[in-house]
Amino acid sequence: MIILQNIKTPQQLRLMDATLLPQLCDEIRQVIIKTVSKTGGHLGSSLGAVDLITALHYVFDTPKDKIVFDTGHQAYAHKILTGRLDKFNTIRKKGGLSGFLKIYESEYDAFGAGHASTALSAALGMAMARDQKKETNKVVAVVADGSMTGGIAYEALQNAGQLKTNLLVILNDNQMFISDRVGALGTFLTKLMTKKYMLAAEDEAAKLVGKISNKAAKIAKRAARSILFSDALFGELGFRYYGPVDGNNVAEMVNILRQIKDVPGPVILHTVTKKGKGYAPAEAKPVKFHGLGIFDAETGETIGASDKITYTGAFSRALVKLAQEDESITAITAAMPEGTGLSAFRDKFPGRYYDVGIAEEHAATFAAGLATQGIKPVVAVYSSFAQRCYDQIQQDVALQNLPVVFALDRAGIVGEDGPTHHGVFDISLFRNIPGLIIAAPADENELQHMLKTAFEAKAPFILRYPRGSGAGVEMDKEMKALHIGKAQWLQKGKDANILAIGNCVRPALAAAEILKENGFDCGVANMRFAKPLDGVAIKEALAASPRIITVEDNMLAGGFGSAVLEHICDAGLKAQALRLGIKDIFVEHGKQAELYNDVGISPAKIAAAISKKYKKED
Amino acid sequence: MIILQNIKTPQQLRLMDATLLPQLCDEIRQVIIKTVSKTGGHLGSSLGAVDLITALHYVFDTPKDKIVFDTGHQAYAHKILTGRLDKFNTIRKKGGLSGFLKIYESEYDAFGAGHASTALSAALGMAMARDQKKETNKVVAVVADGSMTGGIAYEALQNAGQLKTNLLVILNDNQMFISDRVGALGTFLTKLMTKKYMLAAEDEAAKLVGKISNKAAKIAKRAARSILFSDALFGELGFRYYGPVDGNNVAEMVNILRQIKDVPGPVILHTVTKKGKGYAPAEAKPVKFHGLGIFDAETGETIGASDKITYTGAFSRALVKLAQEDESITAITAAMPEGTGLSAFRDKFPGRYYDVGIAEEHAATFAAGLATQGIKPVVAVYSSFAQRCYDQIQQDVALQNLPVVFALDRAGIVGEDGPTHHGVFDISLFRNIPGLIIAAPADENELQHMLKTAFEAKAPFILRYPRGSGAGVEMDKEMKALHIGKAQWLQKGKDANILAIGNCVRPALAAAEILKENGFDCGVANMRFAKPLDGVAIKEALAASPRIITVEDNMLAGGFGSAVLEHICDAGLKAQALRLGIKDIFVEHGKQAELYNDVGISPAKIAAAISKKYKKED
Repeated sequence: MIILQNIKTPQQLRLMDATLLPQLCDEIRQVIIKTVSKTGGHLGSSLGAVDLITALHYVFDTPKDKIVFDTGHQAYAHKILTGRLDKFNTIRKKGGLSGFLKIYESEYDAFGAGHASTALSAALGMAMARDQKKETNKVVAVVADGSMTGGIAYEALQNAGQLKTNLLVILNDNQMFISDRVGALGTFLTKLMTKKYMLAAEDEAAKLVGKISNKAAKIAKRAARSILFSDALFGELGFRYYGPVDGNNVAEMVNILRQIKDVPGPVILHTVTKKGKGYAPAEAKPVKFHGLGIFDAETGETIGASDKITYTGAFSRALVKLAQEDESITAITAAMPEGTGLSAFRDKFPGRYYDVGIAEEHAATFAAGLATQGIKPVVAVYSSFAQRCYDQIQQDVALQNLPVVFALDRAGIVGEDGPTHHGVFDISLFRNIPGLIIAAPADENELQHMLKTAFEAKAPFILRYPRGSGAGVEMDKEMKALHIGKAQWLQKGKDANILAIGNCVRPALAAAEILKENGFDCGVANMRFAKPLDGVAIKEALAASPRIITVEDNMLAGGFGSAVLEHICDAGLKAQALRLGIKDIFVEHGKQAELYNDVGISPAKIAAAISKKYKKED
Repeated sequence: MIILQNIKTPQQLRLMDATLLPQLCDEIRQVIIKTVSKTGGHLGSSLGAVDLITALHYVFDTPKDKIVFDTGHQAYAHKILTGRLDKFNTIRKKGGLSGFLKIYESEYDAFGAGHASTALSAALGMAMARDQKKETNKVVAVVADGSMTGGIAYEALQNAGQLKTNLLVILNDNQMFISDRVGALGTFLTKLMTKKYMLAAEDEAAKLVGKISNKAAKIAKRAARSILFSDALFGELGFRYYGPVDGNNVAEMVNILRQIKDVPGPVILHTVTKKGKGYAPAEAKPVKFHGLGIFDAETGETIGASDKITYTGAFSRALVKLAQEDESITAITAAMPEGTGLSAFRDKFPGRYYDVGIAEEHAATFAAGLATQGIKPVVAVYSSFAQRCYDQIQQDVALQNLPVVFALDRAGIVGEDGPTHHGVFDISLFRNIPGLIIAAPADENELQHMLKTAFEAKAPFILRYPRGSGAGVEMDKEMKALHIGKAQWLQKGKDANILAIGNCVRPALAAAEILKENGFDCGVANMRFAKPLDGVAIKEALAASPRIITVEDNMLAGGFGSAVLEHICDAGLKAQALRLGIKDIFVEHGKQAELYNDVGISPAKIAAAISKKYKKED
């Protein structure tokens, strides 16, 4: 770190001689590789974007000029160059730097985002605000190719084309289907690969880049022949299109950005970068190195992964098993076959598998269309991304009472990805939809039974389960459908009873153990269903003791505990209730267990809360 | 009705001689005009689509072949031709036909939809289901131009282009900016009007249509010169593009549909129709006749509109007033300047007004971008459409604590538009978002004060208010900011107290009057804020009496009453609570007052529920 250690701000960066930029980029890469090998994180995209980001800060007058990164996990170099080098080893750790961008972390983080496809909208807002205030700063949106499949990105593109303001969009193309993610996604972009437009793009690229250097022109020409984008679509949307250019050549990027930064109106610069650039293991295995845990920086070998089956794995296996017996079972992912565990299904049943791109809204309504014709679709999606299709689940699925299964992975607290990714809203969010069933398994064995239940339910069904390892329980060989809306008593208590859901059942049991040691007899029911709720179980609990505790890894506002209160109220029952779950805050990032403890959902914390509550009321 | 009365099913239609179709279409138009003049409804689009729909049922083998209408308010002719002529006079009336399509109303209604831009996704699902089942039926999606601005439509287009299945998309273009709605919208489509592609489209249209007749070719050529669409975008997305053709010429439509119905792969047929076709007043004023109440069929004059100020009107005036004093106030609509009352703002402050198209997701994130730069945006949108941007409100606005105001019009029960349009979910939906404020005015005067409050709140703010006339109260000349999270006691009761929110405050007061006559002293607090909740007011109510009643025009699951229960529980208070609101069902269509009575939110019903509950518990 000869150069990097002296760069505390982008202002200092801009005083540097441009010839030193390649070395600086190398140093940034080394910091990223070394750090992420110890912390885990999004490696591949961040390495690919180092040169582009360095060039952006070199050419633009940040933070006055605004750079909006889509999703932001590509932006580690941005953090390092904007005064956060010293703290970079705290990334994704509790109290440390966020793995994404955050407007409250740095004035250089113009906009925070963990969900894809929003940068164009936010950047356009900033650009129009500038115009309204008659200011002159630049606004740049940096968007990866995958994010262009999300509907909101198109909504923003068409709006930008109409408004005709000065806005630079950098389409950062992770190059030619190296990643499975892009490979499975790229539908839309691939369609742009017609020869006609490729030639036009090539010409235009050559014209622009020709001004700069012959070498760059050659690179651009070569790229143009085999590249995804063209000016066809963007030109019609009112954008000037430049590219494709080599986004991993920092010197050329600086030249090109200087050339086009004052081009008026909406401009798209298409850059081609290599995921994992500069780190051989990541270049070779871009899917593995997209986002990962800790690894050996020398070899790229992952370290210390659990060998317990994950909830995702249990879902994956159960789905394949069920699909073998029922050929109407069909699976849909929004660009995450690996993350959601659908890759096994994809490989076995390619004719019943759909990767629709980062397009959760379409995924839900497409599934509804399938279901009208007797197909049994499951949409496998992370809980926090399912938020994008609330309206479709309500209007297109539930209002029409169509039997679509939504498998919401990463429900509850996810850990290091933080507030943009915690799946702690879904029960509150979806519980208001009439006719919808919401289930959550207490362990991976129950998950498989619930999945069978879901396909037999003949109603819209949400199955939510957490990120990470299961409990390590034995898996039943045969799946059996559960009674919908029926809880399971694990033990009944005389002094109090915990009604727990999903991932909280085991901590609740452990809490009851702790309480027992103190002579407090606390029961536990595995409620299984947040909707419909088991009113009988609630009545039984209250018959044993008026003290009732709800535990959930979801918001307390409108969540599972709230549903229990509603039932108690409506049924005219009497209770001394205590609700444990996520209070009215966004939970920050950190280790999963650490955060669960912080929000009070650990055995010790649950036991302590129960002791405190009922001691007082005694 | 010489011909129409004999057409009970599309099968009978298909036995007819094609030469009679124009007369049939005229008869259908007369039925629509006569009926809608008495019932109110969506006149313009439905008249425009008569010939197209007739041709579709004539050529395709419905219901085996599936026709999916986007939004469905264009599809009155479809209802009339599919066995519902006799019931057509019950349209939009309680217990009668829905104003939209409904899969449970008819086997011919392949998919129900009240929210725009979903038909492509649903139709694609049906097409893939057909392929999986190795069946051969046709699937047709009928989509209006405006619906093409919604992000989900693009998500579906790109997916369809990839899947390459047989799917016919009819792009029904309501022709050249006649309607204000399209005029303000058409951003994206307008951008497709480059000469280059127009010529190509013209050629292709001519080639295809030339096979049919010279006259048709001429029409198509003429249309091509001045039309919005081209094959540029769609061709690249993997669609074959045909058109534009005159969708109001039923004979030609029949010919063209016959020609292309067996073209393999995804096909787009671009039809041009005239909104209000065949009814002079509607052709002249397409905005007025898009959707309206009852009118004189002879003259087109509207009958019996209230002269009380509406909530929309009060919002509109207050916004203009506030914006005169604060030039950072900026307004955003998703294609509904008239419906949301933003047209006055648009006319006064065009530089601070944005119509982003049917693009609620972008609207929210665009507003977030504006807010990062000190602009004060208000997104005015119907409550049920705001469901589309939950994720953006949570992630892009609230997580970043950006002061964006969401003015949710049509909150509560809307009446004739039915379950797709009732705004009865928003409190449950949004209440789980940390840091968000949710307010609802008891009358139009309070609305203006709340709007001022919202702009001063420096936090994400949802202001929800109902469809229709205000209470007719006097409007204060000066707007004043309210204390956020503070309720207003209207009267305190010894026997019980009602905590009411928004539109339910006045019915609650009237209910208290009824109860008083029976010697039951019931108080009423106007809670004003669903979030943050006024805990002091709840405590005061419970100090006066343990009997507490919550009333809301929102779902009981997770709604305002649920928030009150949560507070009572968490604060360790004791209460005998009764919650009134929408039970766990989708409310059907009918008159607003009628439906409120049905769900139990009328003075008499509220009073009766209170009497019943506390008599029993006495």
